[in-house]
Amino acid sequence: MSLEKDLFFMQEALKEAKKAGSIGEVPVGAVVVLQDKIIAKGANQVELLQDATAHAEILCITAASSFLKNWRLEGATIYTTLEPCLMCAGAIYAARIKRVIWGARDIRLGANGSWIDIFQKKHPMHSVEIIGEVLQEECGALLTEFFQKRRRENARAIR
Amino acid sequence: MSLEKDLFFMQEALKEAKKAGSIGEVPVGAVVVLQDKIIAKGANQVELLQDATAHAEILCITAASSFLKNWRLEGATIYTTLEPCLMCAGAIYAARIKRVIWGARDIRLGANGSWIDIFQKKHPMHSVEIIGEVLQEECGALLTEFFQKRRRENARAIR
Repeated sequence: MSLEKDLFFMQEALKEAKKAGSIGEVPVGAVVVLQDKIIAKGANQVELLQDATAHAEILCITAASSFLKNWRLEGATIYTTLEPCLMCAGAIYAARIKRVIWGARDIRLGANGSWIDIFQKKHPMHSVEIIGEVLQEECGALLTEFFQKRRRENARAIR
Repeated sequence: MSLEKDLFFMQEALKEAKKAGSIGEVPVGAVVVLQDKIIAKGANQVELLQDATAHAEILCITAASSFLKNWRLEGATIYTTLEPCLMCAGAIYAARIKRVIWGARDIRLGANGSWIDIFQKKHPMHSVEIIGEVLQEECGALLTEFFQKRRRENARAIR
């Protein structure tokens, strides 16, 4: 896929991240693309659903599988605004996604080089192509603003 | 928790695994326990839901969070009949589960020493106590029988 297309789809994932942020969720978004078409979108909903598994990527993988009526997302690309965590990396393997494009680095929990690089170890079932730090500034700025705002609010609440 | 209690709850997870097997799913089951009470049960439903994320552990974590109305399952123990995969290991961390007790080893995909040992690496947010190979014979026999039956059926279909 061309870089232009990757940037276009990452912009779509960013829209999902903004939706998450607008309802008080950590602003992370994802889309799943197959044959140049978005087949599923997902925004982080951990707080709304009170479910630690409700990361944007997991919701998006479930939605894409529902759309295709197939748990095997072969040939699909997932665009996510944040470096996948361990759970999402595992879900990407389990769903047999072909490509992963992620935006901002997650220095605490990222599973593609930050906390751990799980994609370096050969998986017994499946291989994944992964490209990180695509539109990292835009993706990261959303997160930085979100956490700055939350800190300000917490500081006001303490006073 | 006493070994007796752990064995009792693993038997409950085994019942869920049998339910999964009875509908043609790979027979894996899980329960989440808090203060000596089962707060959620889950059976693998990847084929039924056509969703690669529908492992017993993930469904069970979602159900437990829904029951508690809290994504933080602090103090909880998850019993699963199979060594967790990468995705489920990540979900266990994300949900801040305290203890993991698993049954049969997953030699291909297990993330507690078989494919990888993700629990050896210190997690930045949370620590997990993990005990494997509890009722491993019963848990493993279910899986062996399931795959033997499937191979026989496939062989018949080819003839």
